[in-house]
Amino acid sequence: METFFNFLTHRVDDSASVLCVGLDPHPSDLPVPTASAALDFCLRLIKATAPLAAAFKPNAAFFELYGPEGWVALQKVISAIRAESGRLGVTIPIILDAKRGDIASTAEAYAISAFEHLEVDAITLNPYLGRDSIDPFLVYPGKGVFLLCKTSNPGAADLQDLPVSMGIQGIVPLFEHVAYLAQVWNTADNIGLVVGATQPEALQRVRQAAPKAWFLSPGVGAQGGDLETTLRLGLRTDGRGLLINVSRSLAHAQDPAQAAADLCHQITAIRRRLGF
Amino acid sequence: METFFNFLTHRVDDSASVLCVGLDPHPSDLPVPTASAALDFCLRLIKATAPLAAAFKPNAAFFELYGPEGWVALQKVISAIRAESGRLGVTIPIILDAKRGDIASTAEAYAISAFEHLEVDAITLNPYLGRDSIDPFLVYPGKGVFLLCKTSNPGAADLQDLPVSMGIQGIVPLFEHVAYLAQVWNTADNIGLVVGATQPEALQRVRQAAPKAWFLSPGVGAQGGDLETTLRLGLRTDGRGLLINVSRSLAHAQDPAQAAADLCHQITAIRRRLGF
Repeated sequence: METFFNFLTHRVDDSASVLCVGLDPHPSDLPVPTASAALDFCLRLIKATAPLAAAFKPNAAFFELYGPEGWVALQKVISAIRAESGRLGVTIPIILDAKRGDIASTAEAYAISAFEHLEVDAITLNPYLGRDSIDPFLVYPGKGVFLLCKTSNPGAADLQDLPVSMGIQGIVPLFEHVAYLAQVWNTADNIGLVVGATQPEALQRVRQAAPKAWFLSPGVGAQGGDLETTLRLGLRTDGRGLLINVSRSLAHAQDPAQAAADLCHQITAIRRRLGF
Repeated sequence: METFFNFLTHRVDDSASVLCVGLDPHPSDLPVPTASAALDFCLRLIKATAPLAAAFKPNAAFFELYGPEGWVALQKVISAIRAESGRLGVTIPIILDAKRGDIASTAEAYAISAFEHLEVDAITLNPYLGRDSIDPFLVYPGKGVFLLCKTSNPGAADLQDLPVSMGIQGIVPLFEHVAYLAQVWNTADNIGLVVGATQPEALQRVRQAAPKAWFLSPGVGAQGGDLETTLRLGLRTDGRGLLINVSRSLAHAQDPAQAAADLCHQITAIRRRLGF
């Protein structure tokens, strides 16, 4: 079976897109805050953007919010992505944005939830509990994880920027240490990193620290990250290795399909200028 | 409205117990791995241990595992705790062990899920995303959070033990820095710390760093933490400020009520030896 990142690479190449479409049905973006409205919000985005989506990323919080009905809606969102992909004759990776992290015996339950019940292809995880909190997710062939490395929010600085001593490598920010750890742990081509687009210097540091890793980069658009800078600093030397996550700028567009197409054109033009 | 830790203090004093009963229906502990079996597992423990429970702590993973049915079971577990408390004429705090952590606008959704829909009294949170990922939980009067500080698993060392520079306070392990941050952020008596019982030296350091904070300490029993050491190093100078979490040792007991009573007797004897 191919690895998760092989699968993702194929989809990125076939779609000629690096867009990860975030499915974040914020209650404030819905006509009424219900599971059914959250589902409708996502179905509209899926339908509009599937041809140009390198991946879809539903965020568990916006479904969990409604309890059991929310989980039913999340299952339907995942089914709808599979159905729309099938209609297009493609397969689009689904990354569950859940940011889970617990001791190994509990992490096993989260892994079963994500990979066996919801049947997503990858999940975002929080690295604070260390290696044994990640391991239960790594044993699933074909599945992947993205470890939070440097997030896009202001509070990221509180822990992630702290200077830690790494012996001969000297003092590095904690997020850079996480990038090193992820590479040590990534023996089966199934660990990527979440690296926000809001702090270009951090993005550049992580790319230098993890030259071959796949990055999932939120923060372009609503949160202020610049698209060109993110591509220039985040892409690998082979022009791959980066998913640009967009949520609100597509969801708030009058015509999300057109907005996705415009964004893809912009990205293609920038990649061409960068020599890819 | 009283703060969460006032509420917890009253229950600890009234029950003369520091036991937090973890409701962790591991699939391997169930006759069949279903939401209904997970619910039965918890109902038996709730019934048996409520008189001696200073708090209950269901872990979201073991319900999420079953999707929508799991969330229904979790709701029923919470209702059962309220019903059993009512029958006993007491109120027992419920801490949702969810270890969530996301950017502020997403954290708001998790906070609504925990505090408005599930209506638990407190939640465990992961501090890796910093202050703004915690804030949305702190605005709920009477509710509380426990930040992961030093967890009880082997992988805790990977990040939590890293030496970070704290200026005039010198170099401290990351977990100790989290303890300092939690105190700075704790302006409304609603932030406690998760500090595992498996590493006494770390427990002692955190108690020195956060002399007034409430600790939730897993790891006694199945994970190898020693009860007397944990009480000696974890209790505040006023003899309070510590919840000892127990899950498997009660769940696996032939008679969980008797096992809880035995544990409480042991704890009382140790506290007396310690002068409380």
